[in-house]
Amino acid sequence: MKLSDIGGEFAFIRRVTGVPNADPAVVKGVGDDCAVLEYTDARYLLVTVDMLVENTHFSLDWHTPYQVGWKLMEANVSDIVAMGGMPRWAFISLALRADTEVEFMDEFYRGLYDSARRHRVALIGGDTTHGRELAFNIALAGDADKRFTRFRAGARPGELICVTGTLGKSEAGLRLLMAGRRDGCLGGYLEPCCRMEWEGAAIARRAGAMIDVSDGLASEVAHICEESGTGARIDREKIPLSRDTIDAAHAVSGDPYEYALYGGEDFELVFTIESDRIKGLRKEFSDFTVVGEILQKEEGLYIASEGQRSDLKRGYDHFKD
Amino acid sequence: MKLSDIGGEFAFIRRVTGVPNADPAVVKGVGDDCAVLEYTDARYLLVTVDMLVENTHFSLDWHTPYQVGWKLMEANVSDIVAMGGMPRWAFISLALRADTEVEFMDEFYRGLYDSARRHRVALIGGDTTHGRELAFNIALAGDADKRFTRFRAGARPGELICVTGTLGKSEAGLRLLMAGRRDGCLGGYLEPCCRMEWEGAAIARRAGAMIDVSDGLASEVAHICEESGTGARIDREKIPLSRDTIDAAHAVSGDPYEYALYGGEDFELVFTIESDRIKGLRKEFSDFTVVGEILQKEEGLYIASEGQRSDLKRGYDHFKD
Repeated sequence: MKLSDIGGEFAFIRRVTGVPNADPAVVKGVGDDCAVLEYTDARYLLVTVDMLVENTHFSLDWHTPYQVGWKLMEANVSDIVAMGGMPRWAFISLALRADTEVEFMDEFYRGLYDSARRHRVALIGGDTTHGRELAFNIALAGDADKRFTRFRAGARPGELICVTGTLGKSEAGLRLLMAGRRDGCLGGYLEPCCRMEWEGAAIARRAGAMIDVSDGLASEVAHICEESGTGARIDREKIPLSRDTIDAAHAVSGDPYEYALYGGEDFELVFTIESDRIKGLRKEFSDFTVVGEILQKEEGLYIASEGQRSDLKRGYDHFKD
Repeated sequence: MKLSDIGGEFAFIRRVTGVPNADPAVVKGVGDDCAVLEYTDARYLLVTVDMLVENTHFSLDWHTPYQVGWKLMEANVSDIVAMGGMPRWAFISLALRADTEVEFMDEFYRGLYDSARRHRVALIGGDTTHGRELAFNIALAGDADKRFTRFRAGARPGELICVTGTLGKSEAGLRLLMAGRRDGCLGGYLEPCCRMEWEGAAIARRAGAMIDVSDGLASEVAHICEESGTGARIDREKIPLSRDTIDAAHAVSGDPYEYALYGGEDFELVFTIESDRIKGLRKEFSDFTVVGEILQKEEGLYIASEGQRSDLKRGYDHFKD
């Protein structure tokens, strides 16, 4: 039986996890951006892992080794930021090919350390081995103020749904590259930047629920609704797109809204917030857009576009062909 | 330039790590079985990562999926036990092939959870993706009594060098399999068991330095000497070998002492201890053997065999030739 036969990646994860554990230190296990553990009186410990595999998450035809190292760290930091936390300690596992060059790895580490410095992360452990294709894993630990740690659960009907920055830029870059185009804006795909800790923390102090965008806006809002027991409406035309993303989509006859809804790895933040707290947040952090509203569960989960209502497809799933 | 040109895996790790970090919570970063972090007043937090890659660490011709899951968890727990700690929380990253079957993964997780139950580890996070060959990474966190956390550093001249159980059994099983033999004792390679937490803790209360055997006794003693600034003598004939390991070596015309010294993945413990503490340890835990002595640095690092002195070659290195 194939993994796709049981419903893909998320179904597989549900199948093999969920074994109960009796450890009172575990505040939240599988099912959020990070695991959350008791740490000090005032702070939780957060832990996340992310693996990048050659030809799945990056291609050496497209990415420089610097960009691979950079992306690996940003993808992990994004999960900590999405809970309102501060990333602190990274542990890297490397499967290198027999023909991997020292110069390649020096550049990989330069990218990794540049991102680590940006977020004040210390690389303090790892494992080095070899394989037939490159695979890199980071385990990243951080901590967060208990009062302001934000989960996927926590959204309430009436709260507004917001996203930081613009969406679809990673997918736009990927589509250009797949079409053989090296012009246009490839940076969103090749060298994504996650949001900074202070931005995540400013949102976390006021938000209901928060998650980062790694599988597309639709998938992330669905996660929030599933964990919060709510419905949601996404207003398609309100989704923020950059000029570059729109141009890229037009260049390859794509739809930039589809990139935003179903593309991966934008590493922006999606959060829910009561409308009367928006003004306070804007004083501290203003690079976000309202794109919808949390609804009662019975009202459903859908995208509104020009008065029409359409179902939410799920975002990128590794095993759902 | 190839990684082997700069001296292999350990030289590569030295090249890309060692960036200083100013975080006072980091007690020990790269260079021991685990990273060690401040945690509570009385306990340290320990973190280790280990990656297993298809055709490097396991072969589906030889290993059942159950055994791959089992070995992955045991290899990680071993690093925590080797510092005197208790493993607690695991995070797994999986790169699966497009043709990986659900039944395979169910068996893999059965092995993983059986080992996790043995050590009371909770699996509380992960990342699932795909690749052309299977790669599995575990990040494992645990904690340890600050008074009895043991490092590679900490050995002093005059202390005895001890190993738990018997050595060479993993290499013996591998050699049998490579020779096409399915008889004989393959379990040391296919389904290794690391030492239990209570065993590591009993040793840690009395030891100077401790490390687990993942790359052969010679390599582990060399690590202890390097970190402790000492020399050492290993008495070759004292190295404990099982009847099965000796039989396996004879069956394939190998030397079981070489397997013990330079083979990998026995997941036993090597520790140093003052001679007058041996008796107290034996009352609590007795499955160990004295195999040598820590010397002054000037006395060198060597293997003594029948009155002869020979140099220590290093153990398994992923990128040396």
